[in-house]
Amino acid sequence: MDWDLVQGPVRRDLAQVDRQLAQLFRSPVAIVNAVAGHFLGTRGKKFRPTLLLLVARLAGKVRREQVMGATVVELIHAAALIHDDSVDKSVLRRGLPTVNRLWNDDVAIVVGDFLYSKAFETLVSARLLPAMEILAGATHQMALGEALELQFAGQLGLAEREYLKVIDAKTASLMAAACEIGALPAKARTPAGRRRAARFRRFGRAVGMAFQIADDVIDFLGHPAETGKRLGTDLREGKVTLPLIHALRRLRGAPRSRLAALAAQRRLRRAEFRELVGLIAAGDGFCYATARARAYARQAQRLLASEPSSAVKEALGHAVDYAVGRTR
Amino acid sequence: MDWDLVQGPVRRDLAQVDRQLAQLFRSPVAIVNAVAGHFLGTRGKKFRPTLLLLVARLAGKVRREQVMGATVVELIHAAALIHDDSVDKSVLRRGLPTVNRLWNDDVAIVVGDFLYSKAFETLVSARLLPAMEILAGATHQMALGEALELQFAGQLGLAEREYLKVIDAKTASLMAAACEIGALPAKARTPAGRRRAARFRRFGRAVGMAFQIADDVIDFLGHPAETGKRLGTDLREGKVTLPLIHALRRLRGAPRSRLAALAAQRRLRRAEFRELVGLIAAGDGFCYATARARAYARQAQRLLASEPSSAVKEALGHAVDYAVGRTR
Repeated sequence: MDWDLVQGPVRRDLAQVDRQLAQLFRSPVAIVNAVAGHFLGTRGKKFRPTLLLLVARLAGKVRREQVMGATVVELIHAAALIHDDSVDKSVLRRGLPTVNRLWNDDVAIVVGDFLYSKAFETLVSARLLPAMEILAGATHQMALGEALELQFAGQLGLAEREYLKVIDAKTASLMAAACEIGALPAKARTPAGRRRAARFRRFGRAVGMAFQIADDVIDFLGHPAETGKRLGTDLREGKVTLPLIHALRRLRGAPRSRLAALAAQRRLRRAEFRELVGLIAAGDGFCYATARARAYARQAQRLLASEPSSAVKEALGHAVDYAVGRTR
Repeated sequence: MDWDLVQGPVRRDLAQVDRQLAQLFRSPVAIVNAVAGHFLGTRGKKFRPTLLLLVARLAGKVRREQVMGATVVELIHAAALIHDDSVDKSVLRRGLPTVNRLWNDDVAIVVGDFLYSKAFETLVSARLLPAMEILAGATHQMALGEALELQFAGQLGLAEREYLKVIDAKTASLMAAACEIGALPAKARTPAGRRRAARFRRFGRAVGMAFQIADDVIDFLGHPAETGKRLGTDLREGKVTLPLIHALRRLRGAPRSRLAALAAQRRLRRAEFRELVGLIAAGDGFCYATARARAYARQAQRLLASEPSSAVKEALGHAVDYAVGRTR
């Protein structure tokens, strides 16, 4: 996927987001600045700000407060990543060591809290009340999602329904919030404006669901050189994701027992991991999960259908394709 | 100190805060509820809600949104304690094991994030915008304070000015916010109303500074049975506090070298800790710190002076005395 197809129409706004991020990451505390510098250096894809800005651009000019909203969404995403990596004991993120690895968990907690509070302080100072309302809810959903994930850790019998609840809360909620903020009308909220914002909220949620399911497939099948993460990370952290859930549901007899035994083991040798991937494939886990991701992507495309044709609409379509079709 | 002298006038409002806390701690995630139950079970003194409610009561009836503000202040305090205990590797809080000890640091991070986000979601849903503005700022200050503390860890040459900056950010900012919220007028903010709120903000800050300096003295001189914490915790965590700062400044020659050597060691045997306390006392550290705390307490009392006499004003006076005079 040529990333320019997605971000082309909002390049300038994204550059503005980068400048605002660099400014907001700055603090009177040297250790925070060092971590911030490292984090900004890892240069994420800024997928959430991109969604927000494209949705905003669909309706015309991107307003100043929407650029600010995009910045704050990325700030919240950064805070969540830093806390999650610490909880998950992750060591690599975007091919570079995580904050908890390079410094320690204490620094991760404190810098995460710094970024969360900076996000809300920024929204309050700029009086972006509708965005604040949306993002307070999303942040709370994300915390709930993390809590659910801890709760469900290692439960091989996890139902698909529970899995979907987790990824909705931890991932889709912030993309839903980003798209809703992008669709907020400038003036007093008319019923039509509210309906449009609600539609884009559903759009963002569908993109988020597709994105996370794809992510969970990549964790088994990706190439570490591309993903910048180790393979099989979810399993090691006790995260039971859709490919495994489906394969355990589908397989019978010895293959099922073997898959369950390997999955319960968590720390697998290379050959065992390959065997596990083979068993999940035999249980149709990857095809099933990919089909579910594609279904969410189609739902997202349908929610876009009523928009008039434009280069921006096309870019949003590419963003949906990216969410489900990426290999990293 | 008879705690009833302080809380008497706002007993009913505090009972309401307790009910709201029990409700807000409830979640769809079992692990969060378990932690919340443990935390509510430790029954803190609710000093910050007490300050807020007393200040509100000074001006007449306590409004519904002020009770809600008091609840949210305690929620933010709880989130901060849970994250701080994890960062500090504390094992005891109010005589019971900390969350990070009883569960682990992952649970502490996630539940802390849950409570922070619940606090902001609650403020947004109830449309308590002025409180939100004040608390977004305070929460950010608290995160900065924690970051500064990490930054300064183990720096025996820490200046008093830097120490005051840390405790202002990590402790006084939330008490200042609580008192400011308590003093917010019901209607559109008049200049007189704004001045009064600003005065109570300064009052809360002074109480907070006195409270934290007293806390730092107690960490050397308190009785574990009363404090519910281990003695010398700050030193073990590399926190250089006012008694030590002053003694290092005052002592000369061998006693100073010995004090510096003991302090740098962090993990002291019982006899060494007693020697350290003796050296700080010889360097006038405890008297100096207590005098500084008392000066902040007097500043707080002066800021109260213009209020007409009442039982509530007296209770606030007792709250100030408690902040500086307590032994736990």
